[in-house]
Amino acid sequence: MAADCSRPALADVRAAERRLHGRLHRTPVLTCGGLDRLAGRRLLFKCELFQRTGSFKIRGALNAVRSLVEESERAGGGLPRAVVTHSSGNHGQALACAAQAEGIPAYIVVPRTAPHCKQAAIRTYGATLVPCEPSDEALRPDVKVFAAEPCNADDCYQSKLRGELTPNLHPPETIADAVKTSIGPNTWPIIRDLVDDVLTVSEEEIKQATRLVWERMKLLIEPTAGVGVAAVLSKQFQAVPQDVENVCIVLCGGNVDLSSLTWLTALPGKAE
Amino acid sequence: MAADCSRPALADVRAAERRLHGRLHRTPVLTCGGLDRLAGRRLLFKCELFQRTGSFKIRGALNAVRSLVEESERAGGGLPRAVVTHSSGNHGQALACAAQAEGIPAYIVVPRTAPHCKQAAIRTYGATLVPCEPSDEALRPDVKVFAAEPCNADDCYQSKLRGELTPNLHPPETIADAVKTSIGPNTWPIIRDLVDDVLTVSEEEIKQATRLVWERMKLLIEPTAGVGVAAVLSKQFQAVPQDVENVCIVLCGGNVDLSSLTWLTALPGKAE
Repeated sequence: MAADCSRPALADVRAAERRLHGRLHRTPVLTCGGLDRLAGRRLLFKCELFQRTGSFKIRGALNAVRSLVEESERAGGGLPRAVVTHSSGNHGQALACAAQAEGIPAYIVVPRTAPHCKQAAIRTYGATLVPCEPSDEALRPDVKVFAAEPCNADDCYQSKLRGELTPNLHPPETIADAVKTSIGPNTWPIIRDLVDDVLTVSEEEIKQATRLVWERMKLLIEPTAGVGVAAVLSKQFQAVPQDVENVCIVLCGGNVDLSSLTWLTALPGKAE
Repeated sequence: MAADCSRPALADVRAAERRLHGRLHRTPVLTCGGLDRLAGRRLLFKCELFQRTGSFKIRGALNAVRSLVEESERAGGGLPRAVVTHSSGNHGQALACAAQAEGIPAYIVVPRTAPHCKQAAIRTYGATLVPCEPSDEALRPDVKVFAAEPCNADDCYQSKLRGELTPNLHPPETIADAVKTSIGPNTWPIIRDLVDDVLTVSEEEIKQATRLVWERMKLLIEPTAGVGVAAVLSKQFQAVPQDVENVCIVLCGGNVDLSSLTWLTALPGKAE
């Protein structure tokens, strides 16, 4: 897996940008004075919850699928026979959507406990949903067994990743795209040298941050998308020098299971 | 009240535009392919839930308050002593915010049953909240009695409306602004002749439409803002000729009481 997990080259980022051009939404960057005051800095929210499939994972998935199609075309072959992945939701929706756009069957191995709305969306994009037990151990063999059956090891998404089952974020295309989303390819070499610190936030901080984005920005983000907001509102982040005036937060994604909002009403109160 | 309820003149719309220039957000117009397919037309969503105070009512309120201030300045007097209104929420927030911006005290008579989040927001904008019983009959005398006490009848918002207590949408400035929001002043004379029909939608249709906007557009609108969406998705609207290809819907507002989301989970299922 070492090769797949390595940092993407600038050329990969540029190639991904070319492949995705015109196929995705250009999502807006929004601001919120109330959250700026809470954070003590200017916050720029890249609204990837408005992206196709409700998350930025369509960027990596579509890049991977388009790469497969381009490779097949260069080799003079037909379309790849199928793409396979495992996912608890957003990546599965993204791969299903990308495969549908290219006319390729998709098989998504999904934990039985994944949010109902995400499972429904995967089916809406025409993919075959393969339920599995909700553990990493269960996911991996399930996909291996499954992938060996209906599609040739040489022409499916999984096989492109060197025969290994690959967690959502490992393909270099995905990482390249995630970075490119809000920052642009030219700054990648700079960003690479800038990772100064890793912050931790609690589950309650994430929920409070999510609630703040709902209330103040009227944006229906998933709690996962509240992580970055929780980070900039955290005490730890206050130690970051004040000359770091502008902070960009990627809000991703927006696939909330509306039938299970009890986490919200169970919160003790507001963050202020 | 006849004079206040009359149609605003184009000059009123232009004067409002001048007064509000640079004081409000320019909200985006978003689209959603999934909802276009459901409606069978191109829908353009003017996102007034992103407006200051979470609704377009700030347009009318700020216009009214700025008009008062301009009148006082012309008369060589000081600031108006106070503004008073009644509201179940959004208009109260809007007037409180507008008054705060101009440094004028605001008194908002609010039914005790109004959403907690809206009452809290009114206080956040520095206004004095005056609770009353939740009926039109209770609201009117309460404001009359209240307004007679702390402010002179000649210099408060209410008195500008000819001494009558005025429901939220009656001041011509408010109506002018609501129309201007998404359409622009130049088309007003055309629009005036174009009201062909009035549609009715059920409470359940509104809730289903609201849920669709949450799920598909990731926008946290109030059910009130779902009314227009419910209308374009209704059977009645299908009778509108298909050459009406583009429909603009003003999404307003976004002040959802997150602690009371039971209406959502109580819905029988999705609209599709």
